Amino acid sequence: MTTNRTKTPPVAILMGSDSDLPVMAECVKVLESYGIAYDIRVLSAHRSPEQATRFAREAERRGFKVVIAGAGGAAHLAGVVAAHTLLPVIGVPLAGSPLSGFDALLSTVQMPPGIPVATVGVGAMGAGNAGHLAVTLLAMSDAALRAKLADKRKAMAAAVLEKAKTLPKKLRELLDKK
Amino acid sequence: MTTNRTKTPPVAILMGSDSDLPVMAECVKVLESYGIAYDIRVLSAHRSPEQATRFAREAERRGFKVVIAGAGGAAHLAGVVAAHTLLPVIGVPLAGSPLSGFDALLSTVQMPPGIPVATVGVGAMGAGNAGHLAVTLLAMSDAALRAKLADKRKAMAAAVLEKAKTLPKKLRELLDKK
Amino acid sequence: MTTNRTKTPPVAILMGSDSDLPVMAECVKVLESYGIAYDIRVLSAHRSPEQATRFAREAERRGFKVVIAGAGGAAHLAGVVAAHTLLPVIGVPLAGSPLSGFDALLSTVQMPPGIPVATVGVGAMGAGNAGHLAVTLLAMSDAALRAKLADKRKAMAAAVLEKAKTLPKKLRELLDKK
Amino acid sequence: MTTNRTKTPPVAILMGSDSDLPVMAECVKVLESYGIAYDIRVLSAHRSPEQATRFAREAERRGFKVVIAGAGGAAHLAGVVAAHTLLPVIGVPLAGSPLSGFDALLSTVQMPPGIPVATVGVGAMGAGNAGHLAVTLLAMSDAALRAKLADKRKAMAAAVLEKAKTLPKKLRELLDKK
Amino acid sequence: MTTNRTKTPPVAILMGSDSDLPVMAECVKVLESYGIAYDIRVLSAHRSPEQATRFAREAERRGFKVVIAGAGGAAHLAGVVAAHTLLPVIGVPLAGSPLSGFDALLSTVQMPPGIPVATVGVGAMGAGNAGHLAVTLLAMSDAALRAKLADKRKAMAAAVLEKAKTLPKKLRELLDKK
Amino acid sequence: MTTNRTKTPPVAILMGSDSDLPVMAECVKVLESYGIAYDIRVLSAHRSPEQATRFAREAERRGFKVVIAGAGGAAHLAGVVAAHTLLPVIGVPLAGSPLSGFDALLSTVQMPPGIPVATVGVGAMGAGNAGHLAVTLLAMSDAALRAKLADKRKAMAAAVLEKAKTLPKKLRELLDKK
Amino acid sequence: MTTNRTKTPPVAILMGSDSDLPVMAECVKVLESYGIAYDIRVLSAHRSPEQATRFAREAERRGFKVVIAGAGGAAHLAGVVAAHTLLPVIGVPLAGSPLSGFDALLSTVQMPPGIPVATVGVGAMGAGNAGHLAVTLLAMSDAALRAKLADKRKAMAAAVLEKAKTLPKKLRELLDKK
Amino acid sequence: MTTNRTKTPPVAILMGSDSDLPVMAECVKVLESYGIAYDIRVLSAHRSPEQATRFAREAERRGFKVVIAGAGGAAHLAGVVAAHTLLPVIGVPLAGSPLSGFDALLSTVQMPPGIPVATVGVGAMGAGNAGHLAVTLLAMSDAALRAKLADKRKAMAAAVLEKAKTLPKKLRELLDKK
Repeated sequence: MTTNRTKTPPVAILMGSDSDLPVMAECVKVLESYGIAYDIRVLSAHRSPEQATRFAREAERRGFKVVIAGAGGAAHLAGVVAAHTLLPVIGVPLAGSPLSGFDALLSTVQMPPGIPVATVGVGAMGAGNAGHLAVTLLAMSDAALRAKLADKRKAMAAAVLEKAKTLPKKLRELLDKK
Repeated sequence: MTTNRTKTPPVAILMGSDSDLPVMAECVKVLESYGIAYDIRVLSAHRSPEQATRFAREAERRGFKVVIAGAGGAAHLAGVVAAHTLLPVIGVPLAGSPLSGFDALLSTVQMPPGIPVATVGVGAMGAGNAGHLAVTLLAMSDAALRAKLADKRKAMAAAVLEKAKTLPKKLRELLDKK
Repeated sequence: MTTNRTKTPPVAILMGSDSDLPVMAECVKVLESYGIAYDIRVLSAHRSPEQATRFAREAERRGFKVVIAGAGGAAHLAGVVAAHTLLPVIGVPLAGSPLSGFDALLSTVQMPPGIPVATVGVGAMGAGNAGHLAVTLLAMSDAALRAKLADKRKAMAAAVLEKAKTLPKKLRELLDKK
Repeated sequence: MTTNRTKTPPVAILMGSDSDLPVMAECVKVLESYGIAYDIRVLSAHRSPEQATRFAREAERRGFKVVIAGAGGAAHLAGVVAAHTLLPVIGVPLAGSPLSGFDALLSTVQMPPGIPVATVGVGAMGAGNAGHLAVTLLAMSDAALRAKLADKRKAMAAAVLEKAKTLPKKLRELLDKK
Repeated sequence: MTTNRTKTPPVAILMGSDSDLPVMAECVKVLESYGIAYDIRVLSAHRSPEQATRFAREAERRGFKVVIAGAGGAAHLAGVVAAHTLLPVIGVPLAGSPLSGFDALLSTVQMPPGIPVATVGVGAMGAGNAGHLAVTLLAMSDAALRAKLADKRKAMAAAVLEKAKTLPKKLRELLDKK
Repeated sequence: MTTNRTKTPPVAILMGSDSDLPVMAECVKVLESYGIAYDIRVLSAHRSPEQATRFAREAERRGFKVVIAGAGGAAHLAGVVAAHTLLPVIGVPLAGSPLSGFDALLSTVQMPPGIPVATVGVGAMGAGNAGHLAVTLLAMSDAALRAKLADKRKAMAAAVLEKAKTLPKKLRELLDKK
Repeated sequence: MTTNRTKTPPVAILMGSDSDLPVMAECVKVLESYGIAYDIRVLSAHRSPEQATRFAREAERRGFKVVIAGAGGAAHLAGVVAAHTLLPVIGVPLAGSPLSGFDALLSTVQMPPGIPVATVGVGAMGAGNAGHLAVTLLAMSDAALRAKLADKRKAMAAAVLEKAKTLPKKLRELLDKK
Repeated sequence: MTTNRTKTPPVAILMGSDSDLPVMAECVKVLESYGIAYDIRVLSAHRSPEQATRFAREAERRGFKVVIAGAGGAAHLAGVVAAHTLLPVIGVPLAGSPLSGFDALLSTVQMPPGIPVATVGVGAMGAGNAGHLAVTLLAMSDAALRAKLADKRKAMAAAVLEKAKTLPKKLRELLDKK
């Protein structure tokens, strides 16, 4: 699926199963907040390996700049894609299995020499951060995006301060309730 | 590398790096003790992905019956091979990284639906057991091999009992030393 | 319990407790999707050890080809069965205890030299994959089953692609909802 | 092996492999310090299962009072013995595998309902404590042994205090050296 | 609290907090099924250390035979009691903290030389097994109890077989539902 | 936010996100039970690093005596604050991520040489204990507070004993229910 | 042992075994670098519990200000001391067992409500930091010590910068060697 | 330290301690193999926080394109730098502590929303991969570097195949030796 645009968007978001969509949507939200186009698709390193491999091999030529891959369990998707492309690959370990994402984290980050995966945190927090990291990579050669990034950082700090203002009230409610 | 034989041997042993050879040799020793021919090679899921994938896709047609794949870290080799073949794939998690093989174990065993890897223990013990498991699979349709397997089991039990005889002496030496 | 058939089915599914049934049913579903007959029963390595041992010792002679054993906690069932049979034993670590299946995984996979258990993933995903692995083993000497397996693999890849089509719609719903 | 006595000693020490002897010798040292007779043998739950099971089933009738079982990896020995005897079984998880004994600990302690294993710590410290625990159990119905146990406890406390006296000197040496 | 009896019951059940009661009740159920009297109380190694220590020091003289101690987190209760008594102490690691009982398990089982705690599994399964282990220890010198234990074992095996009979029906319901 | 007082309170409570408030409220409750004033605020080591750093650098001069910092995931807040102040910093690892607080615990406690963080337990229990630890530190030079602390300890022990009284009734209810 | 002084030193360093001395010496070195007197002794929570408890109960009255306790395995020493004193207790988890200090860390930090232990990192790094933390606590009411602490912090930063200068040379040596 | 060049090199390599140099040298070797200039320095998030923060804030303006940060234990360096720069930050978890790098991995990867660290594997393998990832990021806007990267990938695959040729000889030596 490509978000309706004529040219290839800079970011491809892959996930190993469509059940990963609610978590990977955190990544989409971040990219949309920057107005960055993306292509999002389900590609399994194991169940549709030909497609996953072909996508990875063609991604650079098709014009993608960054690939984000989220998978759980023995999460091989990011690693398999990284083995077939020169583009940077961001790996999001997902937490669906009984082992709470420890499996996906280790399967994603412990890559062998020469084929790194830029790994972010486990689950929804990591999925959002994959979006932020993709923006950071694109901003390396895009001054306008870098400016947006700087604004966002300031907004984040401001939001932290803003939320702090409501803290006394929330605290009082919590203490009264208990 | 194929052990010098004209027809394809039944077992292919793959490893992610030639530094894995001393551990994977445990597997070879077991197969040789049964007189089972094997092909052994280094194929990296990440550094030589085309070769790994091609090998996997052609393995069945070439006449292999079982594939054993040993890898450490984010051990994807067994999973990548399993995604491209209908042959049974036995995965051996290796313990080379600072994380003691927990990474390789989880990366090998936690496969997604439909693409199982028959995982054995971590390190040398697992490598030897991969050989034993391969023999067990080949023995499913080979009565002579099944008979050898039965003999081996009896020999193992006898060896345990035999070793037990030397226990008092060894124990006394240990106690005297300390 | 034997599914109503006069001859021994090729696969025996064992579980340590009847509370494991909902998870082990994933295994049954896979076997039924291939039309493979199975025998399913509760046998505890610890609470009914005589029966478990006897079953294991007679399994080969009775005509079983593969044994699948699911257990949680200090999951000994697969290992105990493997110690008493020459048939391949597939172990499914179950996740019922507070330790999330780490206990069952390590208790199943870390077998001593000579007695391998072909271990699959933790919980329902592993139970399903035990079924797939059993099919793979039976297909080693059954060309018709191998053809079915090949079809299933293609169907899996197609299903991944099919689901991918609904991704944009699902994503939009998710983003609108939040 | 039975230490040369005509009647059955109260404690049986089992280990899964003769390579476990140096660690299990810690257990022997404790028992000998109390003058308690023991039988020590190698019995593998997996490689000599018949012998292990038979030993367990006959242990009570032969006059043993307590069984100590040490094993590493997917340590099933204590559990298998416990399944076949009404005697108390003390399990010692050994640390030989790359997973540092986490595997043996979980495989020993997480027993299913009704078949407990009295588990002690991992490795040599646990092996020694298995001896102490066996003494404690025998002392439940042996006042003389209980008195010895009390003396030992006092001696242990005294030893701690005694060692404390040399602390300043040892510390000064350490600090001067560095 | 002592269950209304004039003489000291053989088993003392301690727990670190009254919030542990629902889990420790599993232990009570096992003891009651054997008709074994018990004393059950809340004693914190940290919040009521004087009472815990005093209880431990007097337990033997008061006539207790076995102490069961359940605690979560940095579970010190069993260890502290074991340091002050010559009675066997059974430790039940509880799973209340975010760390799922790994903390309580390691805090209970990894005791230093000379002061063993007979550790059982984490949580409710372990609590029940603490009861079974206590019975096993009391049965060492009580033939009638040993006979009951043997009956119970047989009943357990029978129950496993009995439940197995309903398996086909339950399985069919599960498969039809999904 | 400062609780309405003209002079700086002795304790500053920081948290990485306002979503941590319900857990960190446990800390507030303890401080309030001692009548100790506090300042509570949201300061992110990562999203508002300037503010976090500035707060830390000025905390001593402004009159704070102890800083409590709670954070989850790669919990850097306590460490960053400790790097910029000479005041004692108490770190509370929070358990919000899929990794159950193992991440926050290790990120908080494993500080490099020279910059310790006084780490307490994971989650709500730790948050409450951070309050108790802060009181203990303030009591080092405040005899009145030390007396309150002593009273509290006695009250805790009494509460444990008091709760014990209701144990038989609660237990009977539990047993009857099941 | 008390370092030869007539009055009680402010810091007591306790360790569970004299084999812990080489690691706990890191703590001594830090205290000596500040000229802070200390008392150092071996006290086992389990093998000399009376002494440990008595020491803890009397520590405040005798004039100690801070207690540091290092222990490995099921490290109860810090917790037991904390249960018997109102002084701040700093816990150092030691890494001697096969479980690498995970056991000691969890046994030290996961304390129940009301009895916190200020936990530092595992092993030698933690032992040194226990010394730094003790200094920080004493500095709360000692302006001269606070000034020393500030100087030390500056010296640490300077040392980092100083070492940085030799980095190019060291790097070149490393690269040439390989 | 800056490698002798007049303009700012594209990559900054930071490490928390000069003892990390032998491991971080793996990163240098990769960059040098691509002829990429780098600046390498020791900056501690905790012991020289001002310098670390200042470096991070100025890195972009000074012309750096990518920052690599390696640290062990509660590895905060990468996270602290990421909080103060818009440049991509690659984190290398180092394995020096008794906890084998699990601590550094979790402290590096589990970053909060908005401040991602591109995490690579633990230890030397990760350090090398941090170099490869930095090259990948620089190659996003540098066609010549992308071509070099493609050549390197081919060379890696060739090296795997080349090493494979010596496998039979090495294997024979191993088997003969044992």
